[in-house]
Amino acid sequence: MPHIDVGNDAPGIIGLMRFRPETAAPLNDLADALLRTPGPLSRGERELIASYVSHGNGCAFCTGGHSEVAARELEGGMPAVRRVLDDHDFSGLPEKIGALLAIAGLVRKGGKEVTEEAVAAARKAGATDVEIHDTVLIAAAFCMYNRYVDGLAAPLPADPASYGRQMADRVVAHGYANGPGARRA
Amino acid sequence: MPHIDVGNDAPGIIGLMRFRPETAAPLNDLADALLRTPGPLSRGERELIASYVSHGNGCAFCTGGHSEVAARELEGGMPAVRRVLDDHDFSGLPEKIGALLAIAGLVRKGGKEVTEEAVAAARKAGATDVEIHDTVLIAAAFCMYNRYVDGLAAPLPADPASYGRQMADRVVAHGYANGPGARRA
Repeated sequence: MPHIDVGNDAPGIIGLMRFRPETAAPLNDLADALLRTPGPLSRGERELIASYVSHGNGCAFCTGGHSEVAARELEGGMPAVRRVLDDHDFSGLPEKIGALLAIAGLVRKGGKEVTEEAVAAARKAGATDVEIHDTVLIAAAFCMYNRYVDGLAAPLPADPASYGRQMADRVVAHGYANGPGARRA
Repeated sequence: MPHIDVGNDAPGIIGLMRFRPETAAPLNDLADALLRTPGPLSRGERELIASYVSHGNGCAFCTGGHSEVAARELEGGMPAVRRVLDDHDFSGLPEKIGALLAIAGLVRKGGKEVTEEAVAAARKAGATDVEIHDTVLIAAAFCMYNRYVDGLAAPLPADPASYGRQMADRVVAHGYANGPGARRA
């Protein structure tokens, strides 16, 4: 049972964004800057970090969509994504991404959980300051998106698998800044 | 010791935003939409929610700045803010704000912690769907900002009290969208 009446039938964050377009615009712009705008981490790597944090926070809506996007963009597809999410098994990934996922898992628990050792391990595996920064901010941002969706008990889609594929189609084609409620400059 | 070298001397989130202006712009736009753009909750009430969550997460940088802004905008000033932060004492506040702070405290722990009872109590005290939405999103967003600052071990200002007053001056005059790295449309 959703905690508020958003006045539309869209599931998860989409219904919330249609309810409050004033906040949807910067939320979509942030997602685009974090996950789609060209940066040193690939789109697949960034979506994997988002999925890993969302799964750790138990947010089925965010995990469903972002793991589908990650699977499209990463070598190994959905089996590779599920190994990370379900088994915390980073062994099939480049060492740098495993070390960054470990940092993301610490950020999920709390900012102060990130240790110098975890940062040193990422750096030793080749991570730059920008990559460490982006990992921390993506993980922090999904602690927001997950709490937003579940804190309002936003409903899941009727058919999550099909919905996830549709979301991935849209994101791969258009990114997040064109999502519902986004500013149309 | 900060986890990354941001190449500037600015403390907390300001140094991070100068380091990565690509993500600073939507982060500032989001803060402005949540805390400054006219909405049903007053600016003081929204800054109090931000401060309460930041204090609960142990983020000294965010608590310092936002509690100073809250104190400027709220009746009772800093003593009223400190009663909420240090003593979790909501008795001096309107019942509606106390109930919304309770929801914010649950969001801080996790989205799924928000109970139907907490939402019903807020509604009974007069909170609308938009006010409940905005409370959840502000609390969720500060779980992001706090993790961003502390997850990168961003340094505190040399003189936190003076810095907090300067930040409050700037925010009250200009809002957040004019902050460092913000998009200048």
